[in-house]
Amino acid sequence: MDVAQLFSTRARAGVDPELAIILAGPPPGTLGMTGGFPNPATFPSEELAEIAARLVQDEPGLALQYGPSAGLPSFREYLVERVTHLEGREPALDELMVTSGGMECLDLLCRSLLDAGDDVAVEGPTYLGAIMGFRDYGARLTGVPMDADGLEVAWLRERLESGYRPKFLYTIPEFQNPSGRTLTLERRRALVELCREYGVLIVEDVAYKELSFDGSQLPSLWALAPDVVVQAGTFSKVFCPGTRLGWAVGPAALIAQLSSAKGGTDQCAGALSQRLVEEYGRAGHFGRRLPHARALYESHWVALSAALARHMPEGVEWSEPTGGMFTWLRMPEGLDARELRPAATEAGVAYVPGSPFYVDGGGANEMRLSYSSLDEAQLGIAAERLAGVIQSVPSAARR
Amino acid sequence: MDVAQLFSTRARAGVDPELAIILAGPPPGTLGMTGGFPNPATFPSEELAEIAARLVQDEPGLALQYGPSAGLPSFREYLVERVTHLEGREPALDELMVTSGGMECLDLLCRSLLDAGDDVAVEGPTYLGAIMGFRDYGARLTGVPMDADGLEVAWLRERLESGYRPKFLYTIPEFQNPSGRTLTLERRRALVELCREYGVLIVEDVAYKELSFDGSQLPSLWALAPDVVVQAGTFSKVFCPGTRLGWAVGPAALIAQLSSAKGGTDQCAGALSQRLVEEYGRAGHFGRRLPHARALYESHWVALSAALARHMPEGVEWSEPTGGMFTWLRMPEGLDARELRPAATEAGVAYVPGSPFYVDGGGANEMRLSYSSLDEAQLGIAAERLAGVIQSVPSAARR
Repeated sequence: MDVAQLFSTRARAGVDPELAIILAGPPPGTLGMTGGFPNPATFPSEELAEIAARLVQDEPGLALQYGPSAGLPSFREYLVERVTHLEGREPALDELMVTSGGMECLDLLCRSLLDAGDDVAVEGPTYLGAIMGFRDYGARLTGVPMDADGLEVAWLRERLESGYRPKFLYTIPEFQNPSGRTLTLERRRALVELCREYGVLIVEDVAYKELSFDGSQLPSLWALAPDVVVQAGTFSKVFCPGTRLGWAVGPAALIAQLSSAKGGTDQCAGALSQRLVEEYGRAGHFGRRLPHARALYESHWVALSAALARHMPEGVEWSEPTGGMFTWLRMPEGLDARELRPAATEAGVAYVPGSPFYVDGGGANEMRLSYSSLDEAQLGIAAERLAGVIQSVPSAARR
Repeated sequence: MDVAQLFSTRARAGVDPELAIILAGPPPGTLGMTGGFPNPATFPSEELAEIAARLVQDEPGLALQYGPSAGLPSFREYLVERVTHLEGREPALDELMVTSGGMECLDLLCRSLLDAGDDVAVEGPTYLGAIMGFRDYGARLTGVPMDADGLEVAWLRERLESGYRPKFLYTIPEFQNPSGRTLTLERRRALVELCREYGVLIVEDVAYKELSFDGSQLPSLWALAPDVVVQAGTFSKVFCPGTRLGWAVGPAALIAQLSSAKGGTDQCAGALSQRLVEEYGRAGHFGRRLPHARALYESHWVALSAALARHMPEGVEWSEPTGGMFTWLRMPEGLDARELRPAATEAGVAYVPGSPFYVDGGGANEMRLSYSSLDEAQLGIAAERLAGVIQSVPSAARR
């Protein structure tokens, strides 16, 4: 039997090979600025050891059993409190559910909203996993251009005025993956008004929101307009990815549908993970731990930023993140980040080329640099190596 | 914004309301023989407490981080050993992957194999979650009749000879959910030969396989014919559901596709859960724990079986499981398990009506009884109450 002959249309379409390259990790011997993995130094292992042992021993009937698809009641109640604290707006219990991480939330949204051929608007560039996920459901993707202030709302308005009607707009307002940019407050207000006017649902991914270097934060899109926004959150960056947990907050009818869809995937998020995060959070550990994570990423960025400024040749630009773990680097026109990759590997540095992050072309001369995993000294060396690779291209090759 | 207006075709189709009734749990004040939850007394809380604390403390960079979509390498290696031990056949490493439970494996299979309108064969009756999952992808479902020896292979042969070509056949060979029946060895051999002959992939769900009362087991379909079978396993029944873990074993090309599809759902199973099960298993706890679980379910079944024999009126029949947690009860023709439900609730007993488990009608006079959660004394009372409800129907109502 040739099982590949049985594959569905979507399976035959395959996946972007860039994702496999990212997941395989940086080539041996290179300093990797590739992945978006959080730094393990931010993981709360001491606090968790005690909590995990206690939960498994004291409440196996809850923490080790199946749970409701929407999440354990006590954890949902905790999440309501947490979201209220973070957002300054209290969701109703039926406006919130537990997910098995941020990507799973996007998948539940696709199941619940997308038929093949539906339009979806994303940022250009945007998260590679989201592009793949949306394409998997046959969505037609349109990239909304970005500048230093985030996605260009005026551009989207023009398109909507011309009759464009996406099922939803997917955006990462803070320290965006991959660009590191943050949507300004003015644009946030304009965006939710625009989407309300045209009946476009906003899917707001707040994966990095709590990782601002200075601890400050702008109001989320959901807080500004809970009627037209569903927020996808994850504990992967502020707690750890190993427990596969996130949340969705949005209109009750949509949350009910997402919960129902979850019954057909993993049925429920792990109860042990849910109780771990709940106990961790109720003990106040987020408030104690997060400042350390913010300081770590800031210190990494300061190091990378200084090294880029010192080593990069003229004509190379990069974004100035105020949180999160990414910067977006643009080389002079004519250079191609994919073509430079062998030379970069040779020089001992790794990055992710920019073009896969765009749904409609472009980005050949751009790249994503992650500063989450390497330490300050390594980031300095990595930047110097990368600068050397870029400088090694004969100027004749540049347009 | 009316978000329901944005719902996809599959979301609008909705789900079987019976599932919501099951998930809501038995009505207050009733003895519930409804759910398929494992008994928490079988959960390994003592062993796990030590392991969980150690993993979180000693290896946060592994147990709390993201992992590969196919599973952590060390856990996959352990699973290869475990499957080899259980099946007497060793899968190659690329023939095995980690899933977030059995249902998620079915979802990955649907993503990878099904286009709308594809044919899928299931047992009649079969697992409600599978029916819903397959329908969600637009599959056309056909029920293969069962008798006491499991699915009727001769019936399937006739259909295949007439040109019927399902993408796959879904079967639960041991202590089937919901019927409690086990596919005989003779039929297993006939089934894999038939499916090999006609190029039909077999999806074998071994959720209950290790829960035989006497510890014995028949060769799995995968062990008999690894070229035409993909096996979906879960740790929910032999360990606990709260860690959301399972495995898939099958042809390497299919496993690669399932792993790729998993990148678009939850990206990877929880690393902490994977390391928990690995450490638990390597310490030999499965071998020590499983006999207790088998003895518990057997003792529950012995109690229920005796009570059914004592109290049920003539004309009522039930299956004789040799493992697992379900028996399938058939009332005389003309009785309707859904119609009897209010009287059963009134009498203080709850079951799941049979018809939702069939994809093409029938089963109105049948029901699933689970003996996993109630204790022996409760099961005796539940059977007596149920018998009273059935007897209360005037014989005129029976055909």
